[in-house]
Amino acid sequence: MSKGLLILISGASGTGKGTVCKKILADMPEIFYSISATTRQPRTGETDGVEYFFITHEEFKKWIAEDKFLEYAEVYGNFYGTPLNKIEERLNRGENVLLEIDTQGALNVMKKIPDGVYIFLLPPSLEELEKRIKIRGSESPESLKRRINSAKAEISLGRKYQYVVVNDSVENAVEKIKSIISAEICRVSRNKKILDELTGEDFLIEN
Amino acid sequence: MSKGLLILISGASGTGKGTVCKKILADMPEIFYSISATTRQPRTGETDGVEYFFITHEEFKKWIAEDKFLEYAEVYGNFYGTPLNKIEERLNRGENVLLEIDTQGALNVMKKIPDGVYIFLLPPSLEELEKRIKIRGSESPESLKRRINSAKAEISLGRKYQYVVVNDSVENAVEKIKSIISAEICRVSRNKKILDELTGEDFLIEN
Repeated sequence: MSKGLLILISGASGTGKGTVCKKILADMPEIFYSISATTRQPRTGETDGVEYFFITHEEFKKWIAEDKFLEYAEVYGNFYGTPLNKIEERLNRGENVLLEIDTQGALNVMKKIPDGVYIFLLPPSLEELEKRIKIRGSESPESLKRRINSAKAEISLGRKYQYVVVNDSVENAVEKIKSIISAEICRVSRNKKILDELTGEDFLIEN
Repeated sequence: MSKGLLILISGASGTGKGTVCKKILADMPEIFYSISATTRQPRTGETDGVEYFFITHEEFKKWIAEDKFLEYAEVYGNFYGTPLNKIEERLNRGENVLLEIDTQGALNVMKKIPDGVYIFLLPPSLEELEKRIKIRGSESPESLKRRINSAKAEISLGRKYQYVVVNDSVENAVEKIKSIISAEICRVSRNKKILDELTGEDFLIEN
């Protein structure tokens, strides 16, 4: 059996990562979603163990010390981390694993798992992103400006990914991500076994 | 506007390249299909200018001399070539171009157009391929054996492609190829302009 895909979705704050991931999981329940841990407060409607494991700073530090994270990062004073347990196990069983990680954390995962599928969500425009950030929190003009600049810096990191998907509508973005998953399953590097079976293992004609 | 995709579909003889390409073009009429030229005789139902340009050996040699081919190759005593005209023009206009090329010719195109999308069709099994080769022509046992061995050699070239797609049914294969096309459109290397527009051209933070 071939290994599962590690699919990582990232993007600047306010790009709609969470909503997109929720829809992918609703459409493709066979994908294992790795829930992140965070020290930030739950937003209205968020439940511990669903969107995140909400843990204290002390617990977070303990998990770091115990090497329980694939990656972790501090974003706006809060810690976010991806618990390692289960991810490798699921991938080895041939299951696909979905991660939603901030732009800082994602770069660390790329280094550790180079054969993952790295997808970067983009806002349709900077104006749209500004609107979404405004809706999310009651920001002061200074804080808003800082967030927009920080979003631009984050978006520039998109160049380090394999794919970019414009989140103009959740449906469009999810369709594109599903295509990326199907395509990645067809990558020749993930299908060596089939080729070996059809031709014999070391059968390679040079041209 | 970004450049169109060059999508090349290849695979061993008898893998069903022609049928798959026909269905893709029926489903996606916006794709430009580059018709190959060949010196082989038309099969029943084939029309000049539709499946192929059927030309004589003399004409073929003239086209070679006039540098009119992106690639050409001899397969079982017949010549097959991809006329260059229109391909670059269409790509530059942002149109996607589909090529169906034998395994030899495809390797030549890879060298000339490294940013193309290279898809290799696989038979579901060697038994199935044997069946299809038998149906196609009235083969002697020796000729059949030679073709099977040659098909194995061709299949081993699949390792040089980006994607492999098992042609277990035309519908499945076409769905996968459509996903590959959608995914390739999202490749970060094809979306530098969008990233530049969102962040300013040389905005790249190193991490």
